[in-house]
Amino acid sequence: MPLANEKQAFFPHQAEILPNPLGTASGFILRHKSKIYVFLPGVPKELQYLFNENVLPLLEKESQEKAIYRTRTLKVFGLTESTIADRLKGINPQDHSASLAYLPRFPENHVKITVKGISSEEVEKNLQALEKIIWEKLEGRVFAVDTETLEAIVGQLLRSHQSTLAVAESCTGGLITHRLTQIPGSSDYFERGIVAYSNRAKIEILKVPEELLIQDGAVSGSVAEKMAEGVRQISQATLGLGITGIAGPGAGSEEKPVGTVFIALATPKGTVTKKYQFWGDREQIKTISAHTAIDWVRRYFLNQLSGMNSQLSEKS
Amino acid sequence: MPLANEKQAFFPHQAEILPNPLGTASGFILRHKSKIYVFLPGVPKELQYLFNENVLPLLEKESQEKAIYRTRTLKVFGLTESTIADRLKGINPQDHSASLAYLPRFPENHVKITVKGISSEEVEKNLQALEKIIWEKLEGRVFAVDTETLEAIVGQLLRSHQSTLAVAESCTGGLITHRLTQIPGSSDYFERGIVAYSNRAKIEILKVPEELLIQDGAVSGSVAEKMAEGVRQISQATLGLGITGIAGPGAGSEEKPVGTVFIALATPKGTVTKKYQFWGDREQIKTISAHTAIDWVRRYFLNQLSGMNSQLSEKS
Repeated sequence: MPLANEKQAFFPHQAEILPNPLGTASGFILRHKSKIYVFLPGVPKELQYLFNENVLPLLEKESQEKAIYRTRTLKVFGLTESTIADRLKGINPQDHSASLAYLPRFPENHVKITVKGISSEEVEKNLQALEKIIWEKLEGRVFAVDTETLEAIVGQLLRSHQSTLAVAESCTGGLITHRLTQIPGSSDYFERGIVAYSNRAKIEILKVPEELLIQDGAVSGSVAEKMAEGVRQISQATLGLGITGIAGPGAGSEEKPVGTVFIALATPKGTVTKKYQFWGDREQIKTISAHTAIDWVRRYFLNQLSGMNSQLSEKS
Repeated sequence: MPLANEKQAFFPHQAEILPNPLGTASGFILRHKSKIYVFLPGVPKELQYLFNENVLPLLEKESQEKAIYRTRTLKVFGLTESTIADRLKGINPQDHSASLAYLPRFPENHVKITVKGISSEEVEKNLQALEKIIWEKLEGRVFAVDTETLEAIVGQLLRSHQSTLAVAESCTGGLITHRLTQIPGSSDYFERGIVAYSNRAKIEILKVPEELLIQDGAVSGSVAEKMAEGVRQISQATLGLGITGIAGPGAGSEEKPVGTVFIALATPKGTVTKKYQFWGDREQIKTISAHTAIDWVRRYFLNQLSGMNSQLSEKS
């Protein structure tokens, strides 16, 4: 055993050890003159685990304060922080013994509700009432609560609709597929992903007609549509998601600047295609493009994807 | 314009405004009784930008201290923090007016050198001398310096060897491809990525023989090998990288527990395959698997990939 690990077994006299199942460095607690000193390992995952498992319960036990606080975070996508604040400005959080905080978490915006009270019933009632108002005011743009993620919600929707998904990506370069497969059990509904970076991959695997690539260019609505339909057809998945765009920093033009992205969703009811103009560096454009595309699947199942009912490709 | 943005144009009397090209909230500086107060927006990207562009130069200008500090971070993969410390224990950083810090950044471990001196020549000389010693003691496990990333280094190697890469992923679910395509211009050397989550995708696209999937299972060295060779063949790329494994938390067995991962690299000189046993949750296993696979490409070009010279599949 390296010496550096061996010395992790030594603790100060009278320390209460906090065993660390995620690593080799345990935490410990010292008490001195009515104060509590907590020592935790620095690795974020380990610190967070020990904090939640040991330190929070300790604080709760030692606390003299009887007020109860409860928080809920509503995760919003597709509205700016300022727009959210404007939509919610009619709300008076104090009516619910609550406060609101706006937390940008690119590309999401979070609204955090904190309610204070003296009984859990009262706090929970206020929290639920305020949460309901906010959901309604933000009209389908709240996609998840607290620790839920967009990809988990989309996974639940695919599962409950007994649907499968296949993805054909270009500008997002695998990020959509990576995020969908972060969810345990995603192999039940995620069939395959094709990162068709080259034109040859688009033609050979996804059956995008070569003439279309020449005529409209690889970054075009018609190619996004063929990518979505191609991956749906070869995989026999219920839904096929296609995306092509210019993540930059190079390859932009006056007609198609960096951030031009086309998304298409092929479904049993037809295919929807839409053009977006995003903004930012390469990483930001990949991030917001992937988020938008994954959110399309959510909105498809909630019948919120515009253009879906008319079964026509939507251009905007 | 939403009211929330409008109020961002108001500043305290005598504030020096720090314009923010990345967002709507500018920073500002106030001076009061020989103290400097700096106010920055909270969005990390914007804060970091303004800190580097405005606050650091200000501190440098205002500082009375004449000592010069310079740091260099060596990024290490494939050695634990304790092993690195053991390998470097013969070094006395004070001999170079330096100190060393070990920073775990899963799945990487960073060694940060800080040198202090009175002239930039002296500081740079000490930094270079100590850096050289550490590179040698860690034998090819330092893959990048400071802000360089593994995927950028691999991109440079592919480019300088006029080589292209195609990837066939299963357990990493698109993460390898996502990371490779984070690099601007990666379309020059990255040809395509196939996330073959289902057996059908492995058979139809990658031409993995169905008998092999039945006989050895989807998580096996022989299937990893066929995935690498299949994606190399259909893409005509110089190198084909294949990976299959069990990211968990489900699907593990006694014979193939969660964290069992097979990586294969198909090259003009033959195919190398190796079994790994990783540890952690789903996200950690995806992360370390992707990192290991991308590092194979680096080590291939540096002739450090064991088993390559014998042109035989390596099992361990």
